[in-house]
Amino acid sequence: MGYFPAIPDPDPDAASAAWARQTTLTKPTGSLGRLEELSVWVSACQSQCPPQQFQRARVVVFAGDHGVTAAGVSAYPPEVTAAMMANFVAGGAAVNVLADVAGAGVRVVDIAVDTAQPLSEEIGRHKIRRSSGNIAVEDALTPDEVVGAIEAGRRIADEEVDAGADLLIAGDMGIGNTTAATTLVAALTDTEPVEVVGRGTGIDDAGWARKTAAIRDALYRTRRLSADPIALLRICGGADLAAMTGFCAQAAVRRTPVLLDGAVVTSAALAAERLAPGARQWWQAGHRSTEPVHSLALRHLELDPIVDLGMRLGEGSGALVALPVLRAAVATLASMATFTEAGVAGRSSED
Amino acid sequence: MGYFPAIPDPDPDAASAAWARQTTLTKPTGSLGRLEELSVWVSACQSQCPPQQFQRARVVVFAGDHGVTAAGVSAYPPEVTAAMMANFVAGGAAVNVLADVAGAGVRVVDIAVDTAQPLSEEIGRHKIRRSSGNIAVEDALTPDEVVGAIEAGRRIADEEVDAGADLLIAGDMGIGNTTAATTLVAALTDTEPVEVVGRGTGIDDAGWARKTAAIRDALYRTRRLSADPIALLRICGGADLAAMTGFCAQAAVRRTPVLLDGAVVTSAALAAERLAPGARQWWQAGHRSTEPVHSLALRHLELDPIVDLGMRLGEGSGALVALPVLRAAVATLASMATFTEAGVAGRSSED
Repeated sequence: MGYFPAIPDPDPDAASAAWARQTTLTKPTGSLGRLEELSVWVSACQSQCPPQQFQRARVVVFAGDHGVTAAGVSAYPPEVTAAMMANFVAGGAAVNVLADVAGAGVRVVDIAVDTAQPLSEEIGRHKIRRSSGNIAVEDALTPDEVVGAIEAGRRIADEEVDAGADLLIAGDMGIGNTTAATTLVAALTDTEPVEVVGRGTGIDDAGWARKTAAIRDALYRTRRLSADPIALLRICGGADLAAMTGFCAQAAVRRTPVLLDGAVVTSAALAAERLAPGARQWWQAGHRSTEPVHSLALRHLELDPIVDLGMRLGEGSGALVALPVLRAAVATLASMATFTEAGVAGRSSED
Repeated sequence: MGYFPAIPDPDPDAASAAWARQTTLTKPTGSLGRLEELSVWVSACQSQCPPQQFQRARVVVFAGDHGVTAAGVSAYPPEVTAAMMANFVAGGAAVNVLADVAGAGVRVVDIAVDTAQPLSEEIGRHKIRRSSGNIAVEDALTPDEVVGAIEAGRRIADEEVDAGADLLIAGDMGIGNTTAATTLVAALTDTEPVEVVGRGTGIDDAGWARKTAAIRDALYRTRRLSADPIALLRICGGADLAAMTGFCAQAAVRRTPVLLDGAVVTSAALAAERLAPGARQWWQAGHRSTEPVHSLALRHLELDPIVDLGMRLGEGSGALVALPVLRAAVATLASMATFTEAGVAGRSSED
């Protein structure tokens, strides 16, 4: 689309050096499995071997309400979004606790929470509007708003990278956001909604039927537009999804690795890959959520989740549980002794 | 068998309190998936809710050589075991690096390394013999040695718990040890070896055939003994496996949770569960190794691995990659705000 500059590849020379170094470490070749692949990926993203442990991993939680909650698609009332903003700031949410364990910093941004006043000037600096439109009956955003939201996400990624972030995680908060995310992925992949509509935060059968109907109505307005991710974000996405799209794409532009979270973030990542082809090379899937649409989006992105723990919370929580695995991968390639250093004999066949 | 005292159950009241507390935290019920189950398990093991974050997680690497390497069952020469001992002490092995990331301490014990002198008096304090017997042609241990090795593992668990360990991990190091572990699991579960013999550290087809033949020969001497784990450890196990068996069982006696590692440790755990029924309630499976016999042993223990990353290194490495997930589980239950504390509304249906 020309919306983002061409995405650079992670450094293939650093990747080759990393694979070569893996074979010199005091362990059987390949015995660290996925950790070896992840360590090579980090080396390639950092363009150095051995890689450096992450010094400033950052989670940005993108908060936004969704008018489609009026259709009864969620188990929780929309007021929860604003209340959770305060919980994030107070440090009591899952994202705060998990970020502490994983050694990451947390930032919360109000992109489209349905309150007149953002929680603070800083949190509201990139706000686009109060709630996105009810996609069951109207477009989520105006043409100006969708561009503004993508630009907001882009600026947020720039701010984080400029402040030294060396690993980025996007998190989501917003009652109704899995409805928008499911619609977006279905539209981007030409999938029947009934195949991918999940239970979100835990709706019952009647709620599931309402959610599926709302998604069907929204999808009707997106027909013949599956190749236009900006139009889809405008019609059936939302300001928070558009901002996450800009964020994930811009991280790749800035050569900064990203750990994806669950269904909502990954729906935005799928839109970002369409807008900025090749961006996915800078991403790993942190976890597999129980939302069916998440697995569909991961399949289209050809990403294999690091952990699979039955989580479905959002906020960046799944990616944060995967972050220590990524740290472990970096640590082994960066800090293990080589056979030569340790004076350990290699394989019999090589003696 | 009366070898270990009756194993206590983890505290069901603490488990109930933990499940109840999970429903009060600021997240949809169940949305943390496996983390919720793990947090409840830790609460039950600690007999308190909320649980306390682990203050002293300890990995004990049980090192031992195996005479069966004479049958050409491994890709590495047996001298590697002794050389790796020095690497553990110098801090250059995977277990050292991963323990740093996970916040655990590492101890190495020489149970049956094939050297005249242990690396230090402390490391050799529980040594049983130089290498276990070649199980393809002879018993691994004498009757006195198998009891001595189980006792050694038991004492090591006691030493660690008495020094304040609140989470234990057993690791293994020993060229040829997957051959002994595979034989032990096959004998304990009456399984045909060809179904479960894996590639260990990376043997070729000819090596695989030699390994399978050695296991078949060893199994022949174990027939009709599947209900006698001590006899099996003696005939087709080894001193390191017997010590790990005592260690895993004694951890349960001491009400101390254990994260199991891969195929070798889990083979010993399966023997421990037979010797001390119910001990498995005090264990979680850290990871799923690529060794087929590991999945078989986990199935018999009814344990579901926390991560599945294609690892096959041993040393406790897989359990250490899972430890941050367990820490994340504890942290959420211990530190997240409740709906009441955060002033967040619950589910619509409950309003």
